Amino acid sequence: MIIVMKPSATQEEIDRVKDKIESSGLKTHISTGEDVTIIGIIGDKSKIATLELTHLNGVEKTVHITEKYKLVSRNFHPADSIIDCDGIKIGGNEIVVMAGPCAVESEEQLFEAAESVKKSGAKFLRGGAFKPRTSPYDFQGLAEDGLKLLRKAADKFDLKVVTEIIDQNDVELVEKYSDILQVGARNAQNFQLLKALGKSHKPVLLKRGLSETISEWLNAAEYIMSGGNENVIFCERGIRTYETYTRNTLDLSAVCAIKNLSHLPVIVDPSHGTGRWEMIIPMSRAGIAAGADGLIVEVHPHPEVAWSDGAQSLTPKKFAILMDESRKIAEAVGRKL
Amino acid sequence: MIIVMKPSATQEEIDRVKDKIESSGLKTHISTGEDVTIIGIIGDKSKIATLELTHLNGVEKTVHITEKYKLVSRNFHPADSIIDCDGIKIGGNEIVVMAGPCAVESEEQLFEAAESVKKSGAKFLRGGAFKPRTSPYDFQGLAEDGLKLLRKAADKFDLKVVTEIIDQNDVELVEKYSDILQVGARNAQNFQLLKALGKSHKPVLLKRGLSETISEWLNAAEYIMSGGNENVIFCERGIRTYETYTRNTLDLSAVCAIKNLSHLPVIVDPSHGTGRWEMIIPMSRAGIAAGADGLIVEVHPHPEVAWSDGAQSLTPKKFAILMDESRKIAEAVGRKL
Amino acid sequence: MIIVMKPSATQEEIDRVKDKIESSGLKTHISTGEDVTIIGIIGDKSKIATLELTHLNGVEKTVHITEKYKLVSRNFHPADSIIDCDGIKIGGNEIVVMAGPCAVESEEQLFEAAESVKKSGAKFLRGGAFKPRTSPYDFQGLAEDGLKLLRKAADKFDLKVVTEIIDQNDVELVEKYSDILQVGARNAQNFQLLKALGKSHKPVLLKRGLSETISEWLNAAEYIMSGGNENVIFCERGIRTYETYTRNTLDLSAVCAIKNLSHLPVIVDPSHGTGRWEMIIPMSRAGIAAGADGLIVEVHPHPEVAWSDGAQSLTPKKFAILMDESRKIAEAVGRKL
Amino acid sequence: MIIVMKPSATQEEIDRVKDKIESSGLKTHISTGEDVTIIGIIGDKSKIATLELTHLNGVEKTVHITEKYKLVSRNFHPADSIIDCDGIKIGGNEIVVMAGPCAVESEEQLFEAAESVKKSGAKFLRGGAFKPRTSPYDFQGLAEDGLKLLRKAADKFDLKVVTEIIDQNDVELVEKYSDILQVGARNAQNFQLLKALGKSHKPVLLKRGLSETISEWLNAAEYIMSGGNENVIFCERGIRTYETYTRNTLDLSAVCAIKNLSHLPVIVDPSHGTGRWEMIIPMSRAGIAAGADGLIVEVHPHPEVAWSDGAQSLTPKKFAILMDESRKIAEAVGRKL
Repeated sequence: MIIVMKPSATQEEIDRVKDKIESSGLKTHISTGEDVTIIGIIGDKSKIATLELTHLNGVEKTVHITEKYKLVSRNFHPADSIIDCDGIKIGGNEIVVMAGPCAVESEEQLFEAAESVKKSGAKFLRGGAFKPRTSPYDFQGLAEDGLKLLRKAADKFDLKVVTEIIDQNDVELVEKYSDILQVGARNAQNFQLLKALGKSHKPVLLKRGLSETISEWLNAAEYIMSGGNENVIFCERGIRTYETYTRNTLDLSAVCAIKNLSHLPVIVDPSHGTGRWEMIIPMSRAGIAAGADGLIVEVHPHPEVAWSDGAQSLTPKKFAILMDESRKIAEAVGRKL
Repeated sequence: MIIVMKPSATQEEIDRVKDKIESSGLKTHISTGEDVTIIGIIGDKSKIATLELTHLNGVEKTVHITEKYKLVSRNFHPADSIIDCDGIKIGGNEIVVMAGPCAVESEEQLFEAAESVKKSGAKFLRGGAFKPRTSPYDFQGLAEDGLKLLRKAADKFDLKVVTEIIDQNDVELVEKYSDILQVGARNAQNFQLLKALGKSHKPVLLKRGLSETISEWLNAAEYIMSGGNENVIFCERGIRTYETYTRNTLDLSAVCAIKNLSHLPVIVDPSHGTGRWEMIIPMSRAGIAAGADGLIVEVHPHPEVAWSDGAQSLTPKKFAILMDESRKIAEAVGRKL
Repeated sequence: MIIVMKPSATQEEIDRVKDKIESSGLKTHISTGEDVTIIGIIGDKSKIATLELTHLNGVEKTVHITEKYKLVSRNFHPADSIIDCDGIKIGGNEIVVMAGPCAVESEEQLFEAAESVKKSGAKFLRGGAFKPRTSPYDFQGLAEDGLKLLRKAADKFDLKVVTEIIDQNDVELVEKYSDILQVGARNAQNFQLLKALGKSHKPVLLKRGLSETISEWLNAAEYIMSGGNENVIFCERGIRTYETYTRNTLDLSAVCAIKNLSHLPVIVDPSHGTGRWEMIIPMSRAGIAAGADGLIVEVHPHPEVAWSDGAQSLTPKKFAILMDESRKIAEAVGRKL
Repeated sequence: MIIVMKPSATQEEIDRVKDKIESSGLKTHISTGEDVTIIGIIGDKSKIATLELTHLNGVEKTVHITEKYKLVSRNFHPADSIIDCDGIKIGGNEIVVMAGPCAVESEEQLFEAAESVKKSGAKFLRGGAFKPRTSPYDFQGLAEDGLKLLRKAADKFDLKVVTEIIDQNDVELVEKYSDILQVGARNAQNFQLLKALGKSHKPVLLKRGLSETISEWLNAAEYIMSGGNENVIFCERGIRTYETYTRNTLDLSAVCAIKNLSHLPVIVDPSHGTGRWEMIIPMSRAGIAAGADGLIVEVHPHPEVAWSDGAQSLTPKKFAILMDESRKIAEAVGRKL
């Protein structure tokens, strides 16, 4: 941490800050510039974290230099991590695609979706059994019945399951049916849920929060990893901005940021990221071109009758095109799909 | 809901949309404008909610006209609601102030804080026993020991308690010690927690999410009210914007918005809203001037040694000034403090 | 400026950065922490500004410590500046209110507006003669005819004039008729216009840009002051955020920020800041309570027939209430209106 | 436009709104729903634009249905427009790359840059002669000397020139030396400049404003087109969001949006869009994969000594890699580079 003093700070004020830091067992480095004096603090990070200096006279501001996360950081783990999800590897050379309806609605809908996405090359079946909805009056999901259908459909068509968990009490329940446990944007900083997932033995797909910074997102993953579960996959799904033409603003530079800062894989959700079906194919291509390790896409056999998110679902036919075009991009960046 | 057709839409396309709507048992109204045709849909709102029309040829966009919340809406409950919190009324003529440290740290710290805020006129003692922190390595709160200290300090100095609940399994535990249950910004759309609070008999202080819209915030309150708990108090605590000089951007127009759209009370948190102690007094004055029913303020006997949020805590002495100045504003708007 | 090295940086990499800085005639201070090494740079600020070090191996990031503005800064001019606008003083004890229609439409409209705002206590008549509009097909203002009407109406009712200038070629023209030259949000970083206003002898009302940071805003004022015109008044008019219920998000903490960082006055525009007439009175009260030196408010004799911005205009009757209520707040904070 | 009445609106209030609209010579369509009545307005758009109805009793809100821009809209011009820039076609099958330093610094720097970008396949030399800088004390550009150097370097290496114009008085001057006139983000809604460019015979590269919506951006282009200049090229360069890890958030879904809504070409600026040189190559790939017609990239022979934006400049060697990788993506989407 660095303390920037005001231009008007007196020597007494500077000395008082210095004394306060050193009395905590930390060391200081003073740099006296033309306008301002800067005090660097060196020593045990946890001691530094508890220092409160902004109230002292003469202090302009404090600047934090280092991040608190460690386990997720590439600085401490330079090689890419590859997450094994019951045999399917995420983060390696192969691009992995997860597809299926927003919500599990019925056996018929789900089997139709599963068959078609498998045929086009998806490796995972997605679908919500627990739906976090803005209004209490909207469809909330089929719960365990939905989970059972997911497992059944996935097994029949040789797919893996990824589905959202919204309650820390449901870890065992969701683990029973799903190969990856997904944390949604609204629970991105639900630390009780993250802690519970730290004890799970299944990989976690951690979506970025509605307005979560890269740093907060990495710290959220640190909650899971520091709990003992090292299998975390990031998922960029768009952030909230002033723009209303798209449902969210898909931040593909976040893919590059995660790749720079962390060793963990990152995939892209162009469906929630844009909220517009006509953008899903180009943004899937763009996601892979940016370096993503996979995609998660909403596919519904009949989007015009979907119970939720129909406007951002692809038909099986359009999904087949998405896979073809994404494959070409994967090859152009030296990967497989 | 309204369907806006493309300028290029053919009569066949318009008819198909019309047929689809009417086959769901809903009525349509067609307006043929100079450039575009608009189709209004009339009938059962829940049926409308499940219609998915954006995939039909010729459809430009759909526009939602009405909000889904009802119980929180002033349209259906024109008079102001006054929430009774064990004898202290929020939402009436009197401005209610809640104050205390960010986190409960020790009996000594808490009693010193409680004594001073009581002396200056606060009605509630605030303090966190469960702290949702960005990093898993930061101080996470004293848990039940913290709750016990809060109750003890509040009782000794004739204050009520308001404290945050971060886990739906803790409703009974927190109810035992606290007079108001607070939902923090990171849990603003943790619907499992909101549903659990719908079953509580204690009032809920519902903070606005980091980037929650007014509409989402009202719908979050609808989760609590539709569960059976009518005692909801909104708390504006700043939203996330591009500006970094302040920790958040305190949106005081949200106070006016809540007052227009809902019958429920709304208070302001200038401490988290700005993150800078020197702004807390002016923004407290501004909050009351904007029409808020109360304030929640961080006060720490020794902010320079606080374990969290010291930069946004007031000393007891500055808090006394805050109360004096806020009282003058309360009187200027015809209220009491 | 401070250079933060990567945890993996070698001594050679650190030395290379150090050498590069020192070869530019600057001094360095090295702090070796537990995880990372930090290099502080001391010396001539303009030399530092031209250093580019992020490309050197081992460099994690650079952190700028000091702001570039000087003339606007309270650090270099601790006392409040009071701007004299042809006899009306802004920034002193008295709150100054500017009011009038969004656009000058006709002599009748303007005189009716001027008479009513004068009667309620406004000191300035506002009104646009040059209107920057999002669409080229919207009403663009009456130009010089509008300026003439403004002057005539103001003179008749003993008011001063404030009006927007949108073109650097119009400085002389607008100066001829107006007492304050206003820079609108869309021109907040039109540096050619700011430079031209640096040569003007009339005070400038500098609105905050749509998504301008506090720092950028202060630098924009520095353009005007460094050109020779010391009479700058800031105007907070709302920033662009994700929230759509209000037209913009009025950031009243910016009033506190400007007061902390600069000696110049700052006023508030609740009309553009909210875009909703029913919020203008409470947000005017809030602005004064936050410490603003004045208000600029849209008042139209007949808002329901206004050519622009009717939804955010007050009637003369409501403006009279605004003045009454604002006066009470002004007194509550020890000022006059 | 549509008027949504309050649930509490009386028949008299509804009639009054209807009468007011019809007395302006417009037609109405009334839809009476379960909760609310909706009034559609049909007729001359310019008459509708001047209606102000939000002040009438019983009115909840007004909803605008159609956009005001026409010339830029794909609705009125379904085929892609291809802009001919002195022989180089933008918007056709070929991806066009513009590259060069942020600012023109010297003949040596510029010629070295021009030679290298030409060698790698760029078609345009970019470089700023007029630099809009946040601080008045930063380097402001070489002005006409810079323009001359640009022309000279471009001619020598058989490149075209694209450079920024920041002053409406400079149209003739910049036209003399440049093949494309660029409007920067800070002037995106400088309507005087846009109007002046409407009279130019050279193509305009219109960057998106810092927080400009898609709709505002299209309207800005409409200013240029309605002035008579049909040669507009959009440039997505990142928008301002809460995220600070990147300088801006590059919004590649805007590429899809422009392609859907307009017939005009759109290119991507990954340098300003991210502000981080290590992201430029992946985001260039992503931009082309999303459907962009070209790229504009900062290349500096020696970024570590650049006078501005060194952190986001590529070396010639990295730029060569960018071109190779972008070429593969172009081919994967069926285009050429």
